[in-house]
Amino acid sequence: MKSAPVVSRRSFLAHIARSGGAAAAFAALDALGCASLAWGEDLAYRGPPVLPGGLGKGKRVTILGAGVAGLTAAYQLGKAGFACAVLEARHRPGGRSWTVRGGDRFEQSDGVQQARWPKAPHLYLNPGPARISHHHRAVLGYCREFGVPLEIMMNDDRAALLQDDGVFGGKPVQARQVLGDTRGYFGELLGKAVSTGKLDQELSQQDRERLLGAIASFGDLQRDGRYAGSARSGYSATPAPGLPHGAVRAPLPLEQLLRADFWQFKASFAEDFDQAGTMLQPVGGMDRFPMAFARRVGPVIRYDTVVDEIRKTAQGARVVCHRGGNHIVIDSDYVICTLPLSVLRGIPNDFTPAYRQAIAEVEYARSAKTAFYAPRRFWEQDDGIYGGLSWTSRDVTQILYPSHGIGQADGVLVGSYCFGAFPGDDMGQYPLAERIEKALAAGEAIHPGYRRMVRDGVNIAWPKVPYSLGSWAEWKPEQYDTVYQLLQQPDGPIYFAGEYLGYLSSWQEGAVLSAHHVIEQLAARVRA
Amino acid sequence: MKSAPVVSRRSFLAHIARSGGAAAAFAALDALGCASLAWGEDLAYRGPPVLPGGLGKGKRVTILGAGVAGLTAAYQLGKAGFACAVLEARHRPGGRSWTVRGGDRFEQSDGVQQARWPKAPHLYLNPGPARISHHHRAVLGYCREFGVPLEIMMNDDRAALLQDDGVFGGKPVQARQVLGDTRGYFGELLGKAVSTGKLDQELSQQDRERLLGAIASFGDLQRDGRYAGSARSGYSATPAPGLPHGAVRAPLPLEQLLRADFWQFKASFAEDFDQAGTMLQPVGGMDRFPMAFARRVGPVIRYDTVVDEIRKTAQGARVVCHRGGNHIVIDSDYVICTLPLSVLRGIPNDFTPAYRQAIAEVEYARSAKTAFYAPRRFWEQDDGIYGGLSWTSRDVTQILYPSHGIGQADGVLVGSYCFGAFPGDDMGQYPLAERIEKALAAGEAIHPGYRRMVRDGVNIAWPKVPYSLGSWAEWKPEQYDTVYQLLQQPDGPIYFAGEYLGYLSSWQEGAVLSAHHVIEQLAARVRA
Repeated sequence: MKSAPVVSRRSFLAHIARSGGAAAAFAALDALGCASLAWGEDLAYRGPPVLPGGLGKGKRVTILGAGVAGLTAAYQLGKAGFACAVLEARHRPGGRSWTVRGGDRFEQSDGVQQARWPKAPHLYLNPGPARISHHHRAVLGYCREFGVPLEIMMNDDRAALLQDDGVFGGKPVQARQVLGDTRGYFGELLGKAVSTGKLDQELSQQDRERLLGAIASFGDLQRDGRYAGSARSGYSATPAPGLPHGAVRAPLPLEQLLRADFWQFKASFAEDFDQAGTMLQPVGGMDRFPMAFARRVGPVIRYDTVVDEIRKTAQGARVVCHRGGNHIVIDSDYVICTLPLSVLRGIPNDFTPAYRQAIAEVEYARSAKTAFYAPRRFWEQDDGIYGGLSWTSRDVTQILYPSHGIGQADGVLVGSYCFGAFPGDDMGQYPLAERIEKALAAGEAIHPGYRRMVRDGVNIAWPKVPYSLGSWAEWKPEQYDTVYQLLQQPDGPIYFAGEYLGYLSSWQEGAVLSAHHVIEQLAARVRA
Repeated sequence: MKSAPVVSRRSFLAHIARSGGAAAAFAALDALGCASLAWGEDLAYRGPPVLPGGLGKGKRVTILGAGVAGLTAAYQLGKAGFACAVLEARHRPGGRSWTVRGGDRFEQSDGVQQARWPKAPHLYLNPGPARISHHHRAVLGYCREFGVPLEIMMNDDRAALLQDDGVFGGKPVQARQVLGDTRGYFGELLGKAVSTGKLDQELSQQDRERLLGAIASFGDLQRDGRYAGSARSGYSATPAPGLPHGAVRAPLPLEQLLRADFWQFKASFAEDFDQAGTMLQPVGGMDRFPMAFARRVGPVIRYDTVVDEIRKTAQGARVVCHRGGNHIVIDSDYVICTLPLSVLRGIPNDFTPAYRQAIAEVEYARSAKTAFYAPRRFWEQDDGIYGGLSWTSRDVTQILYPSHGIGQADGVLVGSYCFGAFPGDDMGQYPLAERIEKALAAGEAIHPGYRRMVRDGVNIAWPKVPYSLGSWAEWKPEQYDTVYQLLQQPDGPIYFAGEYLGYLSSWQEGAVLSAHHVIEQLAARVRA
């Protein structure tokens, strides 16, 4: 939790940085006498909000949804003596934090599927979140507290492939080629500009010399500043006993490198704040995280319980729900609603109009994942790919290779993962068989022979998943100052929490932080 | 195993690439009608040399050293019916592929140390090799064959730190800052040169436009081409419920970024062919790999057996050795010597003069590692560092964080690892206590409070380790065409194998490949 003055000082600097460039921001930083702010973000975790033990005595809270936000709220409020009830429509906790294993059956609006894979600890799909970043301090804090074993999730595998139907004859190239050759070309070009005096106005003489040295290392350039290929991009003949030097690959032609879609975002994906290493995953599947929560929250979770109405009352709030044929009415002092807005807007309620409007207008991403069973880990054995992801220009977007079960005979790989964040980018618009066929066709373009090497595909298109109806909130930038801020505040006795209110969007960390935020608000209200 | 014509064609291309630049190489590639060579290196592993089952019948081979090369040779020759004896001076297999665990005692020329750490599967140090690259196909092939469980070894952690006593007041900065800000500045500068027409001669109009687009993504630039900081470099205030946008850090000043030693090689370390992801490690320690070999090679390994003389005889070769007080003479048809040259040159022999000269002249790196026990994984809990390495300008060079035991309470970290590849860069020149003190002092500069957070340091300086006397062969480029080639050939009945003859240097993969190479030579000779 950042204190307000710090935030505003930092926002001030960010504002200067955006409007005046880096040098101006740094000057401002120095002027504030706090240049050390730039050295090393504080990644220490201070822990969840600490509430006095008896604070909740006699207070009832109904929590809608046993996903990560709901579980967090129930766990912390339970420890502080609140009487919680968690209503969960599914037969399991976790919501979108879900793991499909061999034999599992699941339902979408276009039918029931079953994962016809063998049962083994390394054979699973995380249809929703599959990564925990090293800076997801709150999630990692709970994993530590609950003893959830973690392992490294490889997100930047240089042996993985990029494939664009429009260049290189549609053939895939290795990530190491794209990255190594781009660095080489960029370094060569920048070096030419610097060494021929074209950037003299931008740089001091000393900086120019140092820059040329740094560029040489950055791009692995020849002594004369040319880029003539690099071992970083791989060898056409790998060094071996009879061939100590090997032969480095010819660089990819710059013209084609630039014509490919790689540099739209794919080639810098693993640089992004949310995706840069180290990424982690629970051993055995992402649902190990909500399962650990659910064990501690215990019997206050009522599964198979579907919310039908949310109403305000004189004393608090009333939730009407049903479990099988049983109609249930639950009155409590407060409600914490962690249902996705895509679901919540379909539930009769008497929220104030501004909230109804806000809940109606936030769009949800329409992401989808396909998974296949592979009897042989051909990506490891044939291509040297261990974890990481390959990209394609086709709408299935990517193949994600498991970071677990390394060296086992078989595996489950994610055969497509399209984000569904743009209009038209909606795999769910196609029938199930077509979604799987698209993934097979793209796989064949990346790994020749793919159709014979994978089988038993399943596809989860989140807009078709009951009680989710979408994958995550796709905020428009301007909504952060309006709708986002409104939903951070309770509508009378009703609080809102979920990934969409916590941390940009789509991350479990956001769900946890938003629950912490609500708990703090609620505690302050009860104390007052 | 590459066939000769392919090698020479590829060498030809590499030659063109080095002399004529990338464009010339690519034109040549097209002219050869084999542009597809550039698309995707063949990472499939064809397996070890296949020898006929009874080939070795009646043939005796003495193998000196039960390190990775010796074990490989013994395993394959044994399967082909050769009668092998493996002489190993130590009480364990693996040679430099060694794992130290809690309670282990070990000897160096400056004394005996004991790792006073608790015993637990995640508490270990690999004093020698600690990584298996995804392209170490032969090692990975054996791991698969033997069922050695592998896990990902994180080598590029963006939360890890770089510290240079000469800049930023000696304070560490995060790798993500160095890398993100460098990309930003390089992109901004290159964009300026391109957009102001300074590189018009180098680029077509279309390439210029595409290049500006790629640079914007590469550097995370503003719309106007300026670099004004990036979330990739981290936040000074991380996005959170009340702060959806967060505040990105002010960029590090370019002048200081260039003045630091980061771009000598540290900031591009994880781009290198040998270090780029995915890197792997055996679960539980590197010695799991040679141990798996040794179980299969079995009782032909004679431990505690020290070689005293190597002589040629009329029928083959004679090895004189001792075990305790017992003097032993072993006559055999062939000898495969896998001892490091640093050891071999001290053993009386009757090699031909060219071989004696070659064995005498190859220099060995003088690398050293320190390890500490930490009761609390402060690097994870305080800094969000999960695996990867931090760098310092001091001679201890780096801190390496464990990629295993993530989330456990305690851990063992590598508190220094200097390569010892340059004159003077020899930690072993200092007394043991001083080596450990240097690591503590550097750790304190990277992690304030370090001295109170770690304890029970041990230091392995490879020149001081009996039967190793150095870490790996540091080849001079010109030696590859002379000494290296000579030692690839047997001196009469005596063959040479080891990391130094296999694959550049220093990697277990080289040890395996060089053993395969010797086996093939030996098989051809026996067949003939």
